[in-house]
Amino acid sequence: MTASLSGAELGARLTRMRQATPLIHHITNYVAMNSAANVLLALGASPAMVHARQEAAEFASLADALSVNIGTLSPAWVEAMVEAATSARAHAKPWVLDPVAVGATTYRREVAGRLLACRPTVIRGNASEIIALHGATAGGRGVDSTAASDEALAAAVALARNANAVVAVTGEVDLVTDGQRLARVPGGHALMPRVTTLGCALSGVVAAFVASGDDAFEDCIGALACYGEAGRRAGRDAHGPGSFASAFLDELYRLDADALIGLAPLEIAHVP
Amino acid sequence: MTASLSGAELGARLTRMRQATPLIHHITNYVAMNSAANVLLALGASPAMVHARQEAAEFASLADALSVNIGTLSPAWVEAMVEAATSARAHAKPWVLDPVAVGATTYRREVAGRLLACRPTVIRGNASEIIALHGATAGGRGVDSTAASDEALAAAVALARNANAVVAVTGEVDLVTDGQRLARVPGGHALMPRVTTLGCALSGVVAAFVASGDDAFEDCIGALACYGEAGRRAGRDAHGPGSFASAFLDELYRLDADALIGLAPLEIAHVP
Amino acid sequence: MTASLSGAELGARLTRMRQATPLIHHITNYVAMNSAANVLLALGASPAMVHARQEAAEFASLADALSVNIGTLSPAWVEAMVEAATSARAHAKPWVLDPVAVGATTYRREVAGRLLACRPTVIRGNASEIIALHGATAGGRGVDSTAASDEALAAAVALARNANAVVAVTGEVDLVTDGQRLARVPGGHALMPRVTTLGCALSGVVAAFVASGDDAFEDCIGALACYGEAGRRAGRDAHGPGSFASAFLDELYRLDADALIGLAPLEIAHVP
Repeated sequence: MTASLSGAELGARLTRMRQATPLIHHITNYVAMNSAANVLLALGASPAMVHARQEAAEFASLADALSVNIGTLSPAWVEAMVEAATSARAHAKPWVLDPVAVGATTYRREVAGRLLACRPTVIRGNASEIIALHGATAGGRGVDSTAASDEALAAAVALARNANAVVAVTGEVDLVTDGQRLARVPGGHALMPRVTTLGCALSGVVAAFVASGDDAFEDCIGALACYGEAGRRAGRDAHGPGSFASAFLDELYRLDADALIGLAPLEIAHVP
Repeated sequence: MTASLSGAELGARLTRMRQATPLIHHITNYVAMNSAANVLLALGASPAMVHARQEAAEFASLADALSVNIGTLSPAWVEAMVEAATSARAHAKPWVLDPVAVGATTYRREVAGRLLACRPTVIRGNASEIIALHGATAGGRGVDSTAASDEALAAAVALARNANAVVAVTGEVDLVTDGQRLARVPGGHALMPRVTTLGCALSGVVAAFVASGDDAFEDCIGALACYGEAGRRAGRDAHGPGSFASAFLDELYRLDADALIGLAPLEIAHVP
Repeated sequence: MTASLSGAELGARLTRMRQATPLIHHITNYVAMNSAANVLLALGASPAMVHARQEAAEFASLADALSVNIGTLSPAWVEAMVEAATSARAHAKPWVLDPVAVGATTYRREVAGRLLACRPTVIRGNASEIIALHGATAGGRGVDSTAASDEALAAAVALARNANAVVAVTGEVDLVTDGQRLARVPGGHALMPRVTTLGCALSGVVAAFVASGDDAFEDCIGALACYGEAGRRAGRDAHGPGSFASAFLDELYRLDADALIGLAPLEIAHVP
């Protein structure tokens, strides 16, 4: 365990991911599919969207990692998600759970509970989602309102320990914890929440870094740092969310180890 | 009832919508989901796409308004649309019906008839769709060909009276009527029909204005005027539909009350 | 049969397609729907996405051509694909099969076999897909790895003869054959594989050219040449896949017969 991750170490993770060109199996929502595919292609991974029960488990065994997002649910897809996640685990492939709006409806809480039982490698959500997911698993009610980071921090650590997973809370500053270690990842741009599904697409990016890495906690930090830096760069000349979205794909494509080397080291703290 | 809406009054409706940041529940077609979400985020509303029967009615009761679009139908979604619209009505939430290509197939005419029975607050379509929808409800056959505005005007007024709804016919010049009042809204750009689903996304924008307003007829005019002005601005430097689509999101984001204050007042006529 | 197609002849096919504004029925994957619609609108055709069994066959009889893509399958959609393709054939409408990732799973091989039995007019895929599809129909196993063009060439010719279809293998250089004639179509840009679903959207463009043409082999070449030239132009000032995607739609919109007249003639060879 290192006490920090330097820009050079983050860049090395990006380079390793690109050299591996991991195939990332997505079962994600309809809104995010196109953006997620473009984000992964721009960054240098290989996305595929496969959700039929007839092939989801088979495909999960062939892919390098799986990303499951509950944004637009339906019963047949939920079964495919469970079967794909189970197959990923059985074949020792990492998988990422993205619990979109888990606090909003009873159905989402139930589905998220079933997916948690399939033991995700990483859980990525915003503060409200992580709090709601922790509350759901702890038997309480989900919370859908905007939440403070401190509240999310406690929920993230508890969820990471209960689920034996890395938990990433993304927002203005991202938090990453595996229940023992904790890091804060700055970066990004104020326009990012104005472009739909950038969070959903990030879950696939996390899957790509974890698939090609050796430590899910540090790989996750690498993914968030790259995403944040590309966002920061894209925001420099953007006039609004349209030009930002276009520039963001360009910057993901142009990002390389040299671009990351100047980043301030990210401290890794120990959770008491 | 005013005899006209000034640019200042239109701007006040935009400001009010932004301050409310209404949550707009969409059950819309696969082609439109991403664009509609980006349009609403750019303008300052909060979009959500929820179509499973397990949660559609529950979510409609939580959201501020509902937008239903029949562009890509399937039987399970039709049931969710009916249940969500019924729930919206039961909870006094406004809802918008977008009858895409209603004249094209028997199935679409049947589905549109079922949805009309759920009493939409606003119906938004192009001239052919409004004529076809009126014809379907009047027992006749749908018309899918491009139609003249005068023909659409009569159909729109009759439909508004029969359905007790505001009807918006969008095109080069938009018509809005509640069966008693009538307004024409200019604006937009010739490239808009070359970008897919801008009409579908507009239905969600109408829902956002109506959700945060006090008079569905005038709120609808406010939504169309903002959309048209953002389109006009986006067209100034566009080289084609790609750069237009990007600039349009930027202009929706940048649009504010000051940008609308110079617009010519929109006259509101009385329908005989 | 001509021995070559000049830039002027390619331009004439573009002009003819635009004048016809063919209505192209798509049953395509969720990732591609929005991009495919935008590509067709930019180029001057009229796209529609209709996949419910309740209306797919009826709609195929109304449209000018059908494009079927197996990217994101589900059982209900597969039935709609078969019914739409059967209806297209029954009404003498051309249809294009896009066998996305056909080699990846058992389910895809089975579905592709059923669709081949509905006799597509054109089959468009990348080298791996065409080899896998040929292997599946020949009783062998699909191949999903990147394949050399020479291997694809033999598979393409055999598939064209077995299926009595035009086969287009798209990649850095495209191959088109009807089993007797063979052409190579250059063009495009290195960023095109970094933008998702440009291949899927191309299948709809091929359908539009074939719908408005008189010789599916030459019409297909016309579609590929226009697409490649728009891609080449879009790449001139692109900084990455985001700005490329936007510029590509602009260039499809701006492309006209004059822009194609300077292209080198495309030789048409005889397959021994």
